[in-house]
Amino acid sequence: MQDAETKSIQLVFDAWLQQIRMTASLLESLSDEQLLLPIAPKRNTGKYLLGHLVAVHDALFPLLNLGEKLYPELEEIFIHQSDSAAVEKPGIPFLREAWHKVHMELNTKLAALQTEEWLSRHQAVSAEDFLLAPHRNKLNVILNRTSHLSYHAGQLILLKG
Amino acid sequence: MQDAETKSIQLVFDAWLQQIRMTASLLESLSDEQLLLPIAPKRNTGKYLLGHLVAVHDALFPLLNLGEKLYPELEEIFIHQSDSAAVEKPGIPFLREAWHKVHMELNTKLAALQTEEWLSRHQAVSAEDFLLAPHRNKLNVILNRTSHLSYHAGQLILLKG
Repeated sequence: MQDAETKSIQLVFDAWLQQIRMTASLLESLSDEQLLLPIAPKRNTGKYLLGHLVAVHDALFPLLNLGEKLYPELEEIFIHQSDSAAVEKPGIPFLREAWHKVHMELNTKLAALQTEEWLSRHQAVSAEDFLLAPHRNKLNVILNRTSHLSYHAGQLILLKG
Repeated sequence: MQDAETKSIQLVFDAWLQQIRMTASLLESLSDEQLLLPIAPKRNTGKYLLGHLVAVHDALFPLLNLGEKLYPELEEIFIHQSDSAAVEKPGIPFLREAWHKVHMELNTKLAALQTEEWLSRHQAVSAEDFLLAPHRNKLNVILNRTSHLSYHAGQLILLKG
């Protein structure tokens, strides 16, 4: 069965794509100088949030069984460490490029998933546990990541003049 | 076993309920004094965002053909007018109560929707237009409102000390 035949799955994937497009467009409208600023006093910088979103979405490749991460080094810097940690961070041009590459490849792979794959387990749940918790599937991961993305987009918008 | 469509709809509705619960809990953790503050310098106050979310979700009753709005007067104040507009706004205790009443009634009604109702048109699209744009259904409205809610939750969290 084609996933287009399952209307709800198509809607969820389209909602994800729409949030990615809107955030991409927001990021393009922000200068590197604006991204270096905190979104509010003493809060994360735009740069950290950009790196965080790239790292979280890059982790979807292994989580959804779609391949390896493109930028495994970003996980430590932008997920495990806070913005204020004394670790060297890649520059904004590198992160902007990583944003594009991750989403280009990820969304191509997601677009090819069939209904039964969308509803199959993600890799952080065992086959055994999945029998008891069938909602822990790939579609649910994308739903959660869409909310996570919107959450941070609502913060990035504060950098606009 | 439920079919793929019904399962996916359940996931979308559960994601909505989860965001409502998380935002409700965030709002409860904020004092009235904190909600009076802007989320960042010169930006919306927490109170305005609370009123905005209540007004937007209250509008789901007519949009999804689930009945009348509970608080029609909030639309003008919290959707059409900006935070800085010289209009009298209801107090925070009133808005907190409205948050609970709107979601209690709305979520009860949403929980009763059947698969074919979720995939039926919302009231802002005509039967004719819906034939050409079948994604303009009730499920898609809830998907969009979940992202909208997460977007503002990412702002409200900035009020936490």
